[in-house]
Amino acid sequence: MSLSNLQSRDLKHLWHPCAQMKDYETFPPMEIVSAKGSLLHTANDGPLIDIISSWWCKSLGHGHDEVQQAVRDQMEKFEHVILANTSNELIVNLCEKLISLNPGYNKVFFADSGSDGVEVAVKMSLQYQQQNGQEQRKKFMSLQNAYHGETILTLALGDCGLYSAPYAALMPEIKKILDIPYVSGKVEDLPFEDFSSLLEPLEEYADELAGIVIEPVLQGAGGMLFYHPSFIKALRDWTSARGIHLIADEILTGMGRLGKVRACEFAGVLPDFSVFSKSMTAGFTPMSCVLTTDEIYNGFYDDYETGRGFMHSNTYTGNAISAAAAVAALEFYEREQVFARVAKDSVYMHELFEDVAAETGALLNVRSCGFVVAADLDMSLAGLNKKRCGYELYKKAVRKGLLLRPLGNTVYFLPPLNIERDLLEKSADIMKELIFEELRS
Amino acid sequence: MSLSNLQSRDLKHLWHPCAQMKDYETFPPMEIVSAKGSLLHTANDGPLIDIISSWWCKSLGHGHDEVQQAVRDQMEKFEHVILANTSNELIVNLCEKLISLNPGYNKVFFADSGSDGVEVAVKMSLQYQQQNGQEQRKKFMSLQNAYHGETILTLALGDCGLYSAPYAALMPEIKKILDIPYVSGKVEDLPFEDFSSLLEPLEEYADELAGIVIEPVLQGAGGMLFYHPSFIKALRDWTSARGIHLIADEILTGMGRLGKVRACEFAGVLPDFSVFSKSMTAGFTPMSCVLTTDEIYNGFYDDYETGRGFMHSNTYTGNAISAAAAVAALEFYEREQVFARVAKDSVYMHELFEDVAAETGALLNVRSCGFVVAADLDMSLAGLNKKRCGYELYKKAVRKGLLLRPLGNTVYFLPPLNIERDLLEKSADIMKELIFEELRS
Ligand SMILES: Cc1ncc(COP(=O)(O)O)c(C=O)c1O
Ligand SMILES: Cc1ncc(COP(=O)(O)O)c(C=O)c1O
Repeated sequence: MSLSNLQSRDLKHLWHPCAQMKDYETFPPMEIVSAKGSLLHTANDGPLIDIISSWWCKSLGHGHDEVQQAVRDQMEKFEHVILANTSNELIVNLCEKLISLNPGYNKVFFADSGSDGVEVAVKMSLQYQQQNGQEQRKKFMSLQNAYHGETILTLALGDCGLYSAPYAALMPEIKKILDIPYVSGKVEDLPFEDFSSLLEPLEEYADELAGIVIEPVLQGAGGMLFYHPSFIKALRDWTSARGIHLIADEILTGMGRLGKVRACEFAGVLPDFSVFSKSMTAGFTPMSCVLTTDEIYNGFYDDYETGRGFMHSNTYTGNAISAAAAVAALEFYEREQVFARVAKDSVYMHELFEDVAAETGALLNVRSCGFVVAADLDMSLAGLNKKRCGYELYKKAVRKGLLLRPLGNTVYFLPPLNIERDLLEKSADIMKELIFEELRS
Repeated sequence: MSLSNLQSRDLKHLWHPCAQMKDYETFPPMEIVSAKGSLLHTANDGPLIDIISSWWCKSLGHGHDEVQQAVRDQMEKFEHVILANTSNELIVNLCEKLISLNPGYNKVFFADSGSDGVEVAVKMSLQYQQQNGQEQRKKFMSLQNAYHGETILTLALGDCGLYSAPYAALMPEIKKILDIPYVSGKVEDLPFEDFSSLLEPLEEYADELAGIVIEPVLQGAGGMLFYHPSFIKALRDWTSARGIHLIADEILTGMGRLGKVRACEFAGVLPDFSVFSKSMTAGFTPMSCVLTTDEIYNGFYDDYETGRGFMHSNTYTGNAISAAAAVAALEFYEREQVFARVAKDSVYMHELFEDVAAETGALLNVRSCGFVVAADLDMSLAGLNKKRCGYELYKKAVRKGLLLRPLGNTVYFLPPLNIERDLLEKSADIMKELIFEELRS
């Protein structure tokens, strides 16, 4: 395989994320020279539609003018100042926006990566229980097929065995809730159901649990699986009644991805903690935050000598570049009513997938909520029944101008919330064409 | 206590890092309006000398023109594009710079916070051992008084009991190496010593260890403790002979903070992994990286089906805003020979501390290396022998215009590498004045 100069230089030193680097020998990295809106511009090929929002974070696409301007303006003031014992208009403004978008919460704690944010929420939950008379509550549970990040703790909360097996020796044991009411079709259309009986198997852990961690409604990395929002209601009722925290990882789902500020709103539920990242800064720079209640905060509030403070402190907590991007993104979401548009265009995107499914007969289990739609390749069909079918499709898709990046054999669209309809249509056409080619092969 | 409007708004919603929030009642947050060079400008008081580089990261001070310009230029292209299966001139350029600064390494893996970077290194080490015939190597050790971050794993690697005690239930057991040859005075002046006998107690763990994690030369959060660089040589010899990895957390010490690219250079040692953050982007936005060798990389390189790839993937891996800042910072360091200047000015800063110690008679154990100098308040003296003496000093220091932020009762300077000498002198004068006032109180 002939490599461009940049590709050779890349492969010499750069260890890419989430990869068996040997794969790069036959599928060398695409050289990005610029990006604007929903398009990535490459050095040697045409533009690529970023249908996955660059790992689910570029909620307003690339080079968003207002977000960039906010960052440029902030640079005139400062990029980053330690947040311990300091404050500034920007970060307070961000807190106020986050709180006003999330009635019921009153406190905001910042961290960097999404993984860091989940660590913060779990640490807060455990420490709260330990110092508020519930010392026996030391365990956490999470859901089957969960994904919560890349640190050892968040891998343990997750259920992606392949990724975490080598690290088992360092991981705490986190039991998984197994009976999840997964759904097909359009999540928004589902009527309420009572799932409380699904939680009966949890009863044996009720006295030792500190908290339950969930990706609400949508499990992303676990395979773009949607479950019934009423299940969250059951979880909230069950945990509330027992003094167990509910921790919602809204890193993927929150801030408009599913057409709402929080996916838990589909269930009318306020968890004790909600974690945001990705769309919060419109995918500009890493920032996560944990929103929580006065009740939790008060469980830490005491004289210094009692040792009850929350001592977590990432260096870049409250970074002003990220905060400026976040404020601009939240203002844009609100002013342009982006989430409402998502809720509407979601139907259109779902139909596109249904059409491809109907025409090709090769997609099973079309499902969606907000601006995420997914389906499974029917691996029993000739042409698709091969090893790493999703990966093969990916390599071909980019040659046609679409950054379709299947998860295993699940194809999905998770585009910028402001993507143009014609790009969605074009993406569906490319996907259809690809599938037909595979079926014919 | 009367609060400004911003202070009241802050305390309503913002949960500050590393804090018992009740302390903020009597010491409300300082409002930062702008920052330039080594100065923070406040709304209601005068400028503050940022003598701790905003938690040790603003290595070139605030508002550095070249770093800002690089970020503005990069924004014209893109802010962030998924790094899986893509590449770009900027990130390759950064890799090449990092590798050329660190002969012996050949591969670079990126993450976000410093904590994330340490997680990456530990995960790589463990996975390497597991899949290269050393399945019994599952344990890690670290040093007494260590600090490696805020996630559960990195807290477990650390030895700051107070901060981690509430989370014990989730933490893997990590044994600590206890006999550390701590030193006083100027680290650069120390002659070689053979510390191999200090490692004899480790022999019983030799067969189960995957790696040993260290902050080389300087343990920051543990109390600004310096130890003899020759100890790292002993650790490297001992680990190399046994197939155990040495992992250097250079997040604080690396990229010029101690006057060298890596603190391990004082010992002429190449660990299997070195982790950088903080000064790497000159404190612009969160980015960390792990440098490692071809040998490690090759232990992951295989056919996809073998499952030997390294699947770590933070969303923002290789973020272009951070990468642009990093490239600009590294270029500035090199062109302006910043590290050489640090080595020289370090002597001056050390002398300032020695002078304060001599004049006040209140500082014990003056110690330094590169651009970090520290000393312990003599708590036996009248005026200093009170609870939270360091914290009391801090509150008074900011009123005099110095962000002196003692760690417990240890005072230290860790200024931007390009701080003006007169600001160093002024800082020393303020500290002296403060100590005299305490002694008289
Ligand atoms: C639900 C969820 N939680 C946590 C994370 C981890 O965030 P990060 O990659 O920023 O560490 C992700 C990233 O995809 C996610 O989808
Ligand atoms: C030696 C060391 N390791 C790790 C970290 C954690 O980095 P971060 O705060 O970016 O997570 C720090 C932060 O101060 C540090 O000093």
